[in-house]
Amino acid sequence: MSNGVNYYKADLRNLDFTLYEHLHVEQLFALPLFSHLSRAECDAMMKESYKFATTVSGPLNGSGDREQCRVEGGRVKTPAGFAAAWKQFYALGIPAFPMPQEWEGLGGPISIYLALEEMITGSNTSFNMYPGLSHGAGALIAELALPEQKQRFVKHLVSGRFSGTMCLSEPHAGSDVGATRTKAKPNGDGTYAITGTKCWISCGDNDFVENTIHLVLARVEGAPAGTKGLSLFIVPRVWVNDDGSLGADNDVQVGSIEHKMGINASATCVLNFGEAGRCKGLVVGGIENHGMAQMFHMMNGARIGVAMQGVALASTAYLNALHYAKERMQGPSVKNFKDANAPRVPILQHSDVRRMLLEMKAKVEGMRALLIKLALHLDLADALSKTDEKKAAYHQGQADLMVSLSKSYCSDQSFRIAELAIQIHGGVGYTRDFPVEQYCRDAKIFSIYEGTNHIQALDLVSRQLQRGNGGNFMAYMKDVGDLVTRLSASAALSAEAKAIGEAQRGLQEAAMQLMQWGMGGKLEQVTSVANWFLETMAELTIATLLLEAAEIAQAKLDAGGLEAAEQDFYAGKVASCRFYVWNVLPMGAARVAMIKHGDRSALELPDAGFARY
Amino acid sequence: MSNGVNYYKADLRNLDFTLYEHLHVEQLFALPLFSHLSRAECDAMMKESYKFATTVSGPLNGSGDREQCRVEGGRVKTPAGFAAAWKQFYALGIPAFPMPQEWEGLGGPISIYLALEEMITGSNTSFNMYPGLSHGAGALIAELALPEQKQRFVKHLVSGRFSGTMCLSEPHAGSDVGATRTKAKPNGDGTYAITGTKCWISCGDNDFVENTIHLVLARVEGAPAGTKGLSLFIVPRVWVNDDGSLGADNDVQVGSIEHKMGINASATCVLNFGEAGRCKGLVVGGIENHGMAQMFHMMNGARIGVAMQGVALASTAYLNALHYAKERMQGPSVKNFKDANAPRVPILQHSDVRRMLLEMKAKVEGMRALLIKLALHLDLADALSKTDEKKAAYHQGQADLMVSLSKSYCSDQSFRIAELAIQIHGGVGYTRDFPVEQYCRDAKIFSIYEGTNHIQALDLVSRQLQRGNGGNFMAYMKDVGDLVTRLSASAALSAEAKAIGEAQRGLQEAAMQLMQWGMGGKLEQVTSVANWFLETMAELTIATLLLEAAEIAQAKLDAGGLEAAEQDFYAGKVASCRFYVWNVLPMGAARVAMIKHGDRSALELPDAGFARY
Repeated sequence: MSNGVNYYKADLRNLDFTLYEHLHVEQLFALPLFSHLSRAECDAMMKESYKFATTVSGPLNGSGDREQCRVEGGRVKTPAGFAAAWKQFYALGIPAFPMPQEWEGLGGPISIYLALEEMITGSNTSFNMYPGLSHGAGALIAELALPEQKQRFVKHLVSGRFSGTMCLSEPHAGSDVGATRTKAKPNGDGTYAITGTKCWISCGDNDFVENTIHLVLARVEGAPAGTKGLSLFIVPRVWVNDDGSLGADNDVQVGSIEHKMGINASATCVLNFGEAGRCKGLVVGGIENHGMAQMFHMMNGARIGVAMQGVALASTAYLNALHYAKERMQGPSVKNFKDANAPRVPILQHSDVRRMLLEMKAKVEGMRALLIKLALHLDLADALSKTDEKKAAYHQGQADLMVSLSKSYCSDQSFRIAELAIQIHGGVGYTRDFPVEQYCRDAKIFSIYEGTNHIQALDLVSRQLQRGNGGNFMAYMKDVGDLVTRLSASAALSAEAKAIGEAQRGLQEAAMQLMQWGMGGKLEQVTSVANWFLETMAELTIATLLLEAAEIAQAKLDAGGLEAAEQDFYAGKVASCRFYVWNVLPMGAARVAMIKHGDRSALELPDAGFARY
Repeated sequence: MSNGVNYYKADLRNLDFTLYEHLHVEQLFALPLFSHLSRAECDAMMKESYKFATTVSGPLNGSGDREQCRVEGGRVKTPAGFAAAWKQFYALGIPAFPMPQEWEGLGGPISIYLALEEMITGSNTSFNMYPGLSHGAGALIAELALPEQKQRFVKHLVSGRFSGTMCLSEPHAGSDVGATRTKAKPNGDGTYAITGTKCWISCGDNDFVENTIHLVLARVEGAPAGTKGLSLFIVPRVWVNDDGSLGADNDVQVGSIEHKMGINASATCVLNFGEAGRCKGLVVGGIENHGMAQMFHMMNGARIGVAMQGVALASTAYLNALHYAKERMQGPSVKNFKDANAPRVPILQHSDVRRMLLEMKAKVEGMRALLIKLALHLDLADALSKTDEKKAAYHQGQADLMVSLSKSYCSDQSFRIAELAIQIHGGVGYTRDFPVEQYCRDAKIFSIYEGTNHIQALDLVSRQLQRGNGGNFMAYMKDVGDLVTRLSASAALSAEAKAIGEAQRGLQEAAMQLMQWGMGGKLEQVTSVANWFLETMAELTIATLLLEAAEIAQAKLDAGGLEAAEQDFYAGKVASCRFYVWNVLPMGAARVAMIKHGDRSALELPDAGFARY
């Protein structure tokens, strides 16, 4: 059993490369918004996070999975050690890193915060969800609420005295948020009476904190149908008085928790609001019917968070598989396969194992670069918003284009990579003696929550591609094209650059096909291939990032004079690029062919033709 | 909780189509070996199996997963209901179906037995492993043992009085069976003293039966190293006297059982043989050093069994997802997506859900046809062995070519299909309230046990392609070519036939590439892409089977006069073919391109370049 044992592994050299050698996040420290920070401070925070991940949250990952959450006396009881870990985590100040300084945050960039996040969520997906959701709630209130609302809640969410949640789903309203039935009725004193049942509320309750602040989507009586009539409410579990002291119980009940495949230490709650008619809420920002837009503020962060859950879990799954492959002796080298007395070798020497490991490596590094770059776009958009509107708009546009794509690709691939990690372990990987089967179970939820991966694909093809008259997508394609052009002349990487150029032409053709269908009213055909388009665009994006990284690494190799470990490290960056371009990217061409062929068999088959049972 | 609830669903119309309309299994009843059977008898057995699956084994699937096996007093205790189900299963005579008549079996064909198996294993993967392994042990002894050995054991394995296992793996000898250390020493009385530890022994003990007969690979003192020095022993848990009565305890101890991701009701045991120096065994057939070949007899059956575990689980996962998609209302039709008041529709109406479901349907039907055809080859090889040696050799050759390919593809795809089933369910699919998360956990082992899927791929590319001077593969390619030629002239299916012809050319090129590398001594390059070759060949094979099925269905549709349900059914067969050809098969072309490109980045990267952690 892995109780109490830390299995979390991080490749800090690689994280460092992505942040500073590849994406040059240090450029932020030169901008006024982040000039109060230095790389040294951020590096110190990275060290703290790594230490917390490997000594506190990591050792609770297996035990939390076995013990699970339970409901006792109408409250959630979390597994042993979680409450203490929460306190320690907030005492270290890690959750305060990205929060504005006015709320006692450090005002740090999201790009670096994501790197900290990677370690916490990678070490314990379930644990990290509690502060993750609290951060989302705190950030939303800090940005969109009325000054007195901010005053009442934000600092307690930053300090960890309170926790926060987001409450969207209802039993009949999952992907279809517009079907929300939870009601709000003005009480006449600025508060609203809230009644309804919410489900799938991650970390909906816990035994760490004095109070939990729920952000609840509800419909004010008489508001329009659909998403346009939704408002967002601040609904504390225990009422918070104007002076910050705690008041009466606010009639929010834990109905039950789900028994799940994974993330067992994260309580997924059914919450009943106002069963006794005593539940009150405050409408965020004092305005009704803006709930969806407000929630999307939090949603984008949440989606990036899920994407990072995927990257982080994939990374530790990869490193655990690599570690096992170095230690496990099995079979002779293929060169001596006929000699029964040939020495046994570590399975890392078998070419199939190497192929799986390099696939995992390339994907992990590519996805990490994708997310850090996305976050850097957000940081730059924020930092430049007052000085260079045009640049800020470019960065915001690129970030918008990448959110749903990242959530979907990283979540799908983390499951795939966890699966490969099990396969490399063989039989022991299927047991609880190693962490990889838990990784696989935990990862499965990533493709479902915060908008299923098809909802993400719909967002990409029906909103993001068109946004700004298609300007974001055109700018993206120009960036890809510029990179291809530049590196097509490279001595070492021209073949890879040209292959990426070929893939870009494929994506362009697929986009044209979608546009034709869209304009021809064949929306059902667009939606039927939206997931494939997303995956193809994600692969192209990752290939360009791996190519950029390889270019930097190749320059280091060409310059020479590296010590052995660095030599191998940079060779690994070039290998990640080559592997991805020659062994992952080609699948995109097949998907483009599939999209263009426009098969309608699934659309045209009568319902009764699927099966008789 | 699914305790006591049956979630198993079978599409009997489709099973019937594959057996009789497509593959014409009834041809067997005209051959002497099977002339004692009729379709009516076999249909009656199908009904019994379906009833058992939906009323006995199915309802134990969820509860068995929750309760799991445990060790009490050195013996395995199975979950509630399993022992009674075992007795009922043997009383129905289902396990006796494929056994020779001289052992009170029904002497039925494997092709029909597989269809019975599909229902039992589909309803409860864990339960079916107990009789499945017993059958393997019984069939091996019935075929290869000495007459007095057969007399002593076979009838009790057929009747369910005894159970059986196969004991290959040891802690340091998983894929590398040749590293086996378990020892055998002649006692001078025809028995051997057995000492050693075996692990990963599925159903290594149970509380159903009086005795368990272990088939144990061990090395007789002084035998050669590697697989050539292995012998196979019959090692009963309790000694069996010559008169069939039970003798002394035979010193076989359950060391422990594994705590696994899935198949929790199937006890995966560590077994210690001869710890007290009192364990005796009989060498199968009275000959030493033939253990590997003898075990392979059982292994082929076991691999087909695993492939059927995959198909069966994929089928019920598909049907559960379809059922949910018909009932779950969510969102409006894409045609009304802007209208907040548009009526909500079942998610089956969303094109992405239809796409996923048709992918599942096509794969399930194709994999089922693959396995039934493989079994039919075995039945025909057996039935014709004395009357038409040439035909028998053809059928045996095609069966040999398909075993590892089927095991690998069906096991990988079952996991993929279970994953899609979860995705279609959304959040509820991640909970234990629905069976699909268990399907996914159970399915993960299929790609690992009975030879990992890479071991299967090595078998395909390094043994089966070359077998009989490549004659089996050439005959296979000729069959594919003939089908393509015939249907290229079809009014309805010529485009699909031509696409399959294109895919066949791709496979040919990939095979040539492997051969070149093989002859050039670049074995490490062959093994690095063996899995891709296998998958590509499996997809080509399945495409041809779906095309054959579509041809039959199209003829029915063209002839007209069908009732509505049959019309829809046959339209579904054509849709399965079209979907697979246009949306699955194209990936093969990308894989062929990848193989031909021959990227060596994984082979050449220094070990230290994978990561630093």
